[in-house]
Amino acid sequence: MNIILLEPSEVADQGRVVLSDARALHIRNVLHARPGDVFRMGVLDGPLGTGEVVEVGDDAIELRCTLNEETPPRPPVDLLLALPRPKIMKRLWAQLAALGVGRIILTNAWKVERNYFDTHVLDARFYRPLLIEGLQQARDTRLPEVSIHKQFKVLLNEHLAALVPDAIRIVADPRGERSIRETVNSGSRRVLLAVGPEGGWTDYEIALLQQHGFATIALGRRTLRADTACVALLALVHEALQDS
Amino acid sequence: MNIILLEPSEVADQGRVVLSDARALHIRNVLHARPGDVFRMGVLDGPLGTGEVVEVGDDAIELRCTLNEETPPRPPVDLLLALPRPKIMKRLWAQLAALGVGRIILTNAWKVERNYFDTHVLDARFYRPLLIEGLQQARDTRLPEVSIHKQFKVLLNEHLAALVPDAIRIVADPRGERSIRETVNSGSRRVLLAVGPEGGWTDYEIALLQQHGFATIALGRRTLRADTACVALLALVHEALQDS
Repeated sequence: MNIILLEPSEVADQGRVVLSDARALHIRNVLHARPGDVFRMGVLDGPLGTGEVVEVGDDAIELRCTLNEETPPRPPVDLLLALPRPKIMKRLWAQLAALGVGRIILTNAWKVERNYFDTHVLDARFYRPLLIEGLQQARDTRLPEVSIHKQFKVLLNEHLAALVPDAIRIVADPRGERSIRETVNSGSRRVLLAVGPEGGWTDYEIALLQQHGFATIALGRRTLRADTACVALLALVHEALQDS
Repeated sequence: MNIILLEPSEVADQGRVVLSDARALHIRNVLHARPGDVFRMGVLDGPLGTGEVVEVGDDAIELRCTLNEETPPRPPVDLLLALPRPKIMKRLWAQLAALGVGRIILTNAWKVERNYFDTHVLDARFYRPLLIEGLQQARDTRLPEVSIHKQFKVLLNEHLAALVPDAIRIVADPRGERSIRETVNSGSRRVLLAVGPEGGWTDYEIALLQQHGFATIALGRRTLRADTACVALLALVHEALQDS
């Protein structure tokens, strides 16, 4: 935890905040807080700031927060991800939020097993705390928006334009000939990155993605697991967007 | 498993191989092998090739292998990593091998807890199968070499030059001002990448690394967990090495 994030509803008058959950335990037992100590804080989807410890009790910690710094910009990358198996998806939530993703669009694909959609890993009560964990790691407040789509074709034909109205669209595929850097540069506003299932996209899916404006890009000759591929590709896209 | 890897000792006369472990189960139950089927194979630290299924038994599978393709080149990146907590290190082994690392040098640092060194996660019997899993994912045969060092200063002063004799040395640090791409390019032969502990390197450690020729490089303003940071940095270094 490099920053402590609050729900907007937790901040009372004059910045008074009382915490009694895992964050309170962290402040007391890991940060060894005493009255007067000041920590980095933030409000979910809101500004950054600081919190001064007023009182450390057995069950709760009271802080007086000054949350008037700027709200971090929304990360300029969105992710369209063919749903990986639950064990891998579970590991990805916090990492995606830490790397910085504006929107996470999970989709079915030919090589995704249907029962992956029935797991608790896709329940907001499960993944939201993991996204917040990632934000607290990366000192960000911008919670990624998440949507889940069981029909790939319907997603592309009917919903994607509204979800991501204005972005350079790229899809990682061994058939791709250009690199991320040849497609994305610092002049790009937003990037929508599509990452396929473990077995790859089918020819039909790649053709459909191309029809919807996705440029195929390659990531070297090594085949990576979905979580490794997502982290690697997001790092490359972020770097390409930042470089002048 | 995108390729099945063999120990050199498993290949008998005329390429005969009999498997009876998890690989046999995978070939029978996941790949649904029948006599005559041909799969991609490789020998650890040796050549790639193919194996034709001769017989599928209840307990074992016999293959006739032709292993005369080239041995993949050794990945041009080595990793010097301050030992992360065991849960994170456990997740990293396969990902490091999949991304391609010639040598993994694990070290103590001020912000590494000493008891991390006592776990089974650092036992070769534990991590070697995970490294092989990563190679099988990435279709590589080159097993990363692993060494573990409990004294950071002794490692840098006495052992590092012999372990990694000739490489551009870079260390990820928030104080870094240059990007990976400004330091590494396709003319570089090898890169030694140092990644610090969750709490970062101390000023003393950064100074010692700089004395030993490490250039500090930055990875944006976000603080990442050790596993996310390793994957992101290795992807960026590999890309920088490949680009012309």
